[in-house]
Amino acid sequence: MKIYRANIIHTPTPGKLEIIPHGYVVVQSNGLVEGVYADLPENMDWRRQVMDFGDKLLIPAFNDLHVHAPQYRNMGLALDLELLPWLNTYTFPEETKYADPEYARRLYRRFVHELWMQGTMRSAVFGTIHPESTRILADLFIQAGMGAYVGLVGMNRNCPATLHNTTEEVMAGMRMLKAHLDEHSADGMVRPIITPRFVPSCSDEMLCAMGAYAAETGLPVQSHLSENLSEIDWVKELEPDSTCYGDAYNRYGLFGQTPTLMAHCCYTDGEEMELMRKNGVYVVHCPMSNSNLSSGMAPIRKFLNEGIHVALGTDVSAGHHMSMLRVMQYAIQVSKLNYAQTKGEMSFLSLSEVFYLATKGGGSFFGKVGSFEPGYEFDALLVDDSYLNYDNYTLPQRLERYIYLGDDRDIKRRFCRGVELNEPVF
Amino acid sequence: MKIYRANIIHTPTPGKLEIIPHGYVVVQSNGLVEGVYADLPENMDWRRQVMDFGDKLLIPAFNDLHVHAPQYRNMGLALDLELLPWLNTYTFPEETKYADPEYARRLYRRFVHELWMQGTMRSAVFGTIHPESTRILADLFIQAGMGAYVGLVGMNRNCPATLHNTTEEVMAGMRMLKAHLDEHSADGMVRPIITPRFVPSCSDEMLCAMGAYAAETGLPVQSHLSENLSEIDWVKELEPDSTCYGDAYNRYGLFGQTPTLMAHCCYTDGEEMELMRKNGVYVVHCPMSNSNLSSGMAPIRKFLNEGIHVALGTDVSAGHHMSMLRVMQYAIQVSKLNYAQTKGEMSFLSLSEVFYLATKGGGSFFGKVGSFEPGYEFDALLVDDSYLNYDNYTLPQRLERYIYLGDDRDIKRRFCRGVELNEPVF
Repeated sequence: MKIYRANIIHTPTPGKLEIIPHGYVVVQSNGLVEGVYADLPENMDWRRQVMDFGDKLLIPAFNDLHVHAPQYRNMGLALDLELLPWLNTYTFPEETKYADPEYARRLYRRFVHELWMQGTMRSAVFGTIHPESTRILADLFIQAGMGAYVGLVGMNRNCPATLHNTTEEVMAGMRMLKAHLDEHSADGMVRPIITPRFVPSCSDEMLCAMGAYAAETGLPVQSHLSENLSEIDWVKELEPDSTCYGDAYNRYGLFGQTPTLMAHCCYTDGEEMELMRKNGVYVVHCPMSNSNLSSGMAPIRKFLNEGIHVALGTDVSAGHHMSMLRVMQYAIQVSKLNYAQTKGEMSFLSLSEVFYLATKGGGSFFGKVGSFEPGYEFDALLVDDSYLNYDNYTLPQRLERYIYLGDDRDIKRRFCRGVELNEPVF
Repeated sequence: MKIYRANIIHTPTPGKLEIIPHGYVVVQSNGLVEGVYADLPENMDWRRQVMDFGDKLLIPAFNDLHVHAPQYRNMGLALDLELLPWLNTYTFPEETKYADPEYARRLYRRFVHELWMQGTMRSAVFGTIHPESTRILADLFIQAGMGAYVGLVGMNRNCPATLHNTTEEVMAGMRMLKAHLDEHSADGMVRPIITPRFVPSCSDEMLCAMGAYAAETGLPVQSHLSENLSEIDWVKELEPDSTCYGDAYNRYGLFGQTPTLMAHCCYTDGEEMELMRKNGVYVVHCPMSNSNLSSGMAPIRKFLNEGIHVALGTDVSAGHHMSMLRVMQYAIQVSKLNYAQTKGEMSFLSLSEVFYLATKGGGSFFGKVGSFEPGYEFDALLVDDSYLNYDNYTLPQRLERYIYLGDDRDIKRRFCRGVELNEPVF
C-alpha cells in the first residue's frame, strides 16, 4: 500500500472537478486506488506511510486515444496539404521506412519516450503494415511500463506498392502480435487492436476478415471516420452499398461489435451518429489535427448530448504536438468556433469537460482508468506549477493555468497502474 | 563590430525564407546589420572576431504588436466568456488593481521578464488608465533593454467607476509619459503610443483630443477594431454618424494619420478595409485570442492581397500564452479554417508567411526591425534545436519544427538593437 498527499484534482463526473486540497490518495499494492481522503482515517500504520508532495497537484495521467507512432519523425512538419494528398506526399513515404526494423526501433524509442515525457500513460496507437516493427513498438511499451493498444495496420487498396499488405499478411501479423502479447504482456497492459487504416485503403475482403477476427477474439478496433469532405465522397464512390461511412465498417462487424475507436468524426451526423450511439462506438476527437489539415470541426457538444463516448487524440503527425494539454486547448477553441457558427446553439466545452475527456473519458477504453475513484488503476501525474502560482491562485485556477500554460517540465512524477515510471532508457 | 556565425534564417521578402547555412552576420557597433555573408570577405580583422554558434539557428527576434500588460495575471484563465462580458467580469476588475503602483511593479516585472523569456524583443503594449503604473512599465522596458510602445489607456464611458479617466487626465498622463520617455529613453527604444481603449469606451471628446495630440506630436496610435459582432453592433449604436467602425477612429485622426495599429479586424471588409489600405493602418492579427473569445476568423489572406500591413499579437490575456510561436501556429490554423469555409477561395498562410509576419511584418512598425538586411537593427534569437534535429532535417524543416514544437527553453541568446540582453533582474 502507498499513500500520497498533494492537491488532488480529478473528474469522477463528466465536467465536474473534484478537488481535495492537501488530500490523500491510498493506492493498494495491486495498483488500484483504495480511496481519496481529505483526512486520513485514524490508523497509525497508514499515517507512517504517507509520501507528502507538498503543494503540488496530483491529477490522473493523460490518455491519447489516437496517435500514429510511425509519423513521429514528421511531427511539426509538412502541414501544407489536406488529408488525401498529405497521406500520399508525406505520410506514406515515411511509413514505408518502417519495413526496416532497425529504423523502427530507433524512431519508436523516441516516440514512446515522448509519450512518457508528456504524461500520456495510455495510448491507442497505429503502427504500420510491418509486423516485426509493430512488435518492436509493443515491446517498447512493455519495457516502459506504459499501457497501450498497438495496431498492425491493414491496407490493401489505393496505397503505394511499397506500403501495402494482403489480407493473409495482416491476419498472420495480427495473430503473431496477439500471441506475442498474450505471452509477454500477461498483465494486459499492452494489447493488440484491430486496425484497418480506413475504408478507402481496405478492400471488402480485408474488412470482412478483420471483422471475423474481432468476433473470434473480442479484440477492440480502431480506425478513421468522416474526417474530411473529399474522403467522405470517396468512400461513397468506393462503397456505394453503404448507407453512410460508418455503415461501411458496421456491415463487417468493425463498428462497436467489439470496443471501437473512430478518430475524427468531423462530419458525423444523422444515421452515422445514431449508429455510434447504439453501438457504443467512441469518437476520438483530434482538434489539433483537424485544424492543421483543414478537415473541419467535429460537433462534440452534439455527441456528448447524445451520450456518445468521446475521447481525445493528438493524431500526431497531423497533430503537431504530443502534449494532451495542447489537445485540451484546441478542443475548447474548436468548440468555441462551433459555438460562434451555430450562433450559440452548440455551447462550447468547459475546461473541466475537456479535462474529463483527456483523463476518464479516454481512460474508460482501458477499463477503470483516468480517475481516482475506488477500484480505479492509479495512473497519475504529479505537477509542480509553483512558477505559475505566484499570486495565490485557487486550485481550479491552478489547474486551468497548468492546462493552458504548462508543459512537460512541470511533470515531476508519473504513475501507471500504481507503479512510478522512471524515464525509459532503451 | 561583432560577427556571429550560425545557420541564418530570415525573410527579407514576404513569405520567402532566405537561408544561409553556417553564414555570417556582421553587426556594426551602432547595432545595425552591416550584412549577411555565406563566406566572410577576405579580411583578417573580421575573421578574428567571429563568434561561432555552431549548428544553431539565428533568426530575427519576435515582435508582439498587441498585448495587455495588466492582464498578465489572468493569462491562462477566465476564457469562458465572449469579449464584452469577459471585459466586465474578469478584465476590468484586474486592471483596476493597477491603481496601486506597487502591485503594478510586482506584476509588470513578471510581464517584461516573460516577454524576454519568449524572445519577444519589441512589443506594442496596453497599460491601464493609471499614469504612474504605466510609467513604471515603461521604465522596466528601458531597464531590460527591450523595445516597446507603451500606451496609457483612455476610457471614459461604459466603464466601471473604478476604471475610468477623464479626457484631461489621459491628456496630462500622456504628456507626462512622453516627457519622461523623451528624457529617459533618448535612444527611442521605449516610446509612448496613443491608446484609446476602443470606441465603446471613449467619448467623442476623448477621441477628438487624442487625435489632436497625435497630430501635434506625431505619436502612433493603437486600439481595437471589429473584433466581435456584438461589439460592432454596439459601435453602430454609439456612433450612428460613422459609416463603419474604422470611420469612428478616422474622423478623429486616429486611423493612420500617424502610424496606427488596429487589433483583430475579424470582420473588417469593404469600406473599412479600403480605409485601412489607403491610410496604411496595420491589422494586428490575434488568432489565439480570437479563438479563445469565440470572436471570429480575420480574413488575413484578403488583407495581404490588398497590400494592407499585417502584424501578429498574442493579445494576452484573451490570448492565453506569451509565445509568438503559438501565435504563428494559430495564424496558420485559423487561415486553414477560413480556407475550408471559403472552399479554397482564400488560400491559407504558409509557414514562411507567418514567420515574416512575426518578424519583419510587425517589426516594420518599429522602423528597420525584423530582418537581417543591411541597415536593419540587429534583433535576433539564437535557437538550439538540437533535440529536435535527431535525423538530418533540412534547415527549412528545422525552422518549421522549431515553430511548431519549440519553446522558451530553446532560445540561448537574445539580441536587441545589437546588444545581447541577459535575463532581466529587477
